[in-house]
Amino acid sequence: MLKAKVYVTIKKSVLDPQGVAVQGALHSVGFQEVESLRIGKYMELTLDTNDREEAAKRLKDMCEKLLANTVIEDYRYELEG
Amino acid sequence: MLKAKVYVTIKKSVLDPQGVAVQGALHSVGFQEVESLRIGKYMELTLDTNDREEAAKRLKDMCEKLLANTVIEDYRYELEG
Repeated sequence: MLKAKVYVTIKKSVLDPQGVAVQGALHSVGFQEVESLRIGKYMELTLDTNDREEAAKRLKDMCEKLLANTVIEDYRYELEG
Repeated sequence: MLKAKVYVTIKKSVLDPQGVAVQGALHSVGFQEVESLRIGKYMELTLDTNDREEAAKRLKDMCEKLLANTVIEDYRYELEG
């Protein structure tokens, strides 16, 4: 059993309207120090395998095929013990 | 200028329908090894301050007031250089 964390973020060159909205909301409640804010997704997976190398390959596949839209999003993942 | 990362996750006791849906989708495209999947939010902030201690306090405030719904979500944050 392996645990994995996947981070999907919007590419720097792509506008993040959700982040802009949250930043505006923070400003309006007094957090003026927030200069920028970008929002991504964070996923915690449990994988039924003990082969780290294979799991890393499969995770990359999952990201490419389903978890991230690679046209506008970047992803990275971490595997834990 | 400080950079911060905020992770907002749904509490373990709370159902995560989005995660269940994505897990189902992964199964249907052949990733049977995914035993569980939970989805949270990941935010990258830039803060216009150099006072780490104050920034940490303010970040906690932001999470409590706006970034997380503490009834159903947990949060954690990291401050970078």
